[in-house]
Amino acid sequence: MRVESERLRFEIGARDGAARAGTIHTAHGPIATPAFIPLATKGTVRGLESAEVAELGYELILGNTYHLFVSPGPDRIAAAGGLHGFIGWEGALITDSGGFQVFSLAHGGVANEVKGSGRSGGEKGSEVKITEQGARFRSYRDGSELFISPEVSMQVQAALGSDIALVFDECTPFHADREYTARSTERTHRWLDRCLEWHRQNGSEHQAVFGIVQGGVHEDLRRESAQRVSEAPVDGIAIGGTLGRDKAEMHGVLAMTAPLLPEAAPKHLLGIGEVDDLLGGIALGLDVFDCAVPTRLARHGVALCPNPDKRWRLDLRKSGWVGNREPLVDGCPCPACRHHDRDYVSYLSRAEELTAVRLIVVHNLTYMHQLTTHARAAIEAGTFAAYRTAVLAGASPWDAAKSAT
Amino acid sequence: MRVESERLRFEIGARDGAARAGTIHTAHGPIATPAFIPLATKGTVRGLESAEVAELGYELILGNTYHLFVSPGPDRIAAAGGLHGFIGWEGALITDSGGFQVFSLAHGGVANEVKGSGRSGGEKGSEVKITEQGARFRSYRDGSELFISPEVSMQVQAALGSDIALVFDECTPFHADREYTARSTERTHRWLDRCLEWHRQNGSEHQAVFGIVQGGVHEDLRRESAQRVSEAPVDGIAIGGTLGRDKAEMHGVLAMTAPLLPEAAPKHLLGIGEVDDLLGGIALGLDVFDCAVPTRLARHGVALCPNPDKRWRLDLRKSGWVGNREPLVDGCPCPACRHHDRDYVSYLSRAEELTAVRLIVVHNLTYMHQLTTHARAAIEAGTFAAYRTAVLAGASPWDAAKSAT
Repeated sequence: MRVESERLRFEIGARDGAARAGTIHTAHGPIATPAFIPLATKGTVRGLESAEVAELGYELILGNTYHLFVSPGPDRIAAAGGLHGFIGWEGALITDSGGFQVFSLAHGGVANEVKGSGRSGGEKGSEVKITEQGARFRSYRDGSELFISPEVSMQVQAALGSDIALVFDECTPFHADREYTARSTERTHRWLDRCLEWHRQNGSEHQAVFGIVQGGVHEDLRRESAQRVSEAPVDGIAIGGTLGRDKAEMHGVLAMTAPLLPEAAPKHLLGIGEVDDLLGGIALGLDVFDCAVPTRLARHGVALCPNPDKRWRLDLRKSGWVGNREPLVDGCPCPACRHHDRDYVSYLSRAEELTAVRLIVVHNLTYMHQLTTHARAAIEAGTFAAYRTAVLAGASPWDAAKSAT
Repeated sequence: MRVESERLRFEIGARDGAARAGTIHTAHGPIATPAFIPLATKGTVRGLESAEVAELGYELILGNTYHLFVSPGPDRIAAAGGLHGFIGWEGALITDSGGFQVFSLAHGGVANEVKGSGRSGGEKGSEVKITEQGARFRSYRDGSELFISPEVSMQVQAALGSDIALVFDECTPFHADREYTARSTERTHRWLDRCLEWHRQNGSEHQAVFGIVQGGVHEDLRRESAQRVSEAPVDGIAIGGTLGRDKAEMHGVLAMTAPLLPEAAPKHLLGIGEVDDLLGGIALGLDVFDCAVPTRLARHGVALCPNPDKRWRLDLRKSGWVGNREPLVDGCPCPACRHHDRDYVSYLSRAEELTAVRLIVVHNLTYMHQLTTHARAAIEAGTFAAYRTAVLAGASPWDAAKSAT
């Protein structure tokens, strides 16, 4: 790993067990960690303009290379001054490599596949052909043939101009057997080298590159992958691929993998961001977490709330909210909670009004920001374990922060 | 007409020809006129929470009694402290009577019918039965039978707790013949009396009531209706019903009707809010204008702009915006124009992203607010004719204001 390159510097300010409070310094400003990363999948965080995301306190958002590659395309974005210019975002940007979406198509077409559910695919999915060279697939927009290789991914991410690029990897699904996963992980390592070589020759000195540890649920493969990625000149390390069939296995795989990574690396847990999983990751020393769930839930009328029994979900599409004068979450500082009650937000959501999606997106992103901000403060105060316990017992982040001190 | 009742006071601060700059004082604060009234049809202005509408400078919004009657229903809204409490709006509220939507169903099911296009209906539309007593129709939600009469409309509007209620009228379509329109207008006058009688006995002393002048395109009927409504104890007067088959006829009907109304009355032109029509109404001494167009256009990717040849419409769904670095409208103070360009907003709109609807709603409502705010200033400065001429020639409201001084 590269430490303190010009393109990225990671500073650990406080530790509490394995958890740490740090700062990732990028070309577009610092990111206080632990941090949740909202998804700006196709160039916007659902329903919010960029300035509003910054106002919520976020310093880092994630753009999806696959989607942006398909439309509007890297040339159009580059002509606007990169993704920062195109979407008017002044903070830090991370882009994934496109691998997750491409291989999700190959391995059954759904993200759930990676998480242990869904159909099994294989190296020759009906829509994607994977070779040593890269992945060939058809555009979901117009059926045209597209090709992403490690070099193409890095080239597209260079055009997007993200502060942090992720290397092109194969995201192995849960249903892949050990042999497939082993072969795939080795190929991912060869792709890592090709990504770094492309970047060394053509990349911007302002763009950092994170490697990705694969290896599925297999300890020896994870260990080998962690070592291989750690030895490469990357600026940070992400954990990708399947983490098992259920939460218990996920925690096991993470507990086994996280200590294999170098202490000094900023660590990104890919695609995980539910309340308990995120706190579990922080406890293991992971720093940043991206996840579609908080914004996706909003579309379905589900607000985050301090209720572990309901997986922190308040379903406003259900009946039973008529006349309920409570805010979505008591004490929440977001506008939805300060100005409105469950009765109204539920009515709006059931009436399919855009305003409902907006209000709940803002609430859910506020909730996630509160969760990580208070986690950071707890780490600095040496009370992270008590904070985590309180949240897992059903306290809101702000109440947990009070009770943990 | 009642002048300076406790429930409403209208103050005319400046005049310029027939145009006037005034203030309508309501139980929920003052409204500077001329004013455009955004529609909060089902309890929200498309994609905006109430506080955001206030931040755009609006002091008055309109709720649709018909829609709110069908869902969520007057009882649920009353239990939340009326529509103000239910939607968290602290400014002034006007509610229509439900008549427009009910009779739009009866007369062909579309609002266009009123404007001279669409199928002809009649007294016995397939879905609505109109009698002297009121209108019986089926809920579009669950097919249940609903009934709105003058008394029911006023009762629902009392539950909604609007600052200004509109009387229940039959909104006659263009295709209705003279005889039908005459009979309908007479019935509307009898309904006016029933509305006012219900309100006298049961209404809130904080709720003002506006009468509605009907009479279609027929001068004698409009004259008779204007006189009848002006003599009733209303707090303001709205102009409703068809205004003819095209813009030319509309301007003729308005030019003939407006002078028939008492000088001291606040005057509401129902359902009209395109740029030139609104300025035409102001020139005739009309004060407030509600219209679905600015918010509806946003859903279809159309932004308001200073281009009379395109009916002030910039279609961002069209091709041709790739690489265009201009804001939607140069000099516009809205966030969409300050932070983003046509390339990005067009991309978002074509990608069906909610953010596009949001950005364009905010732009269009900013544009309408700029149009009326500068109109008011021009009236105060005695330069309204020059301001209107400049806007009709293609200047933005803010540029027209400069050139008019």
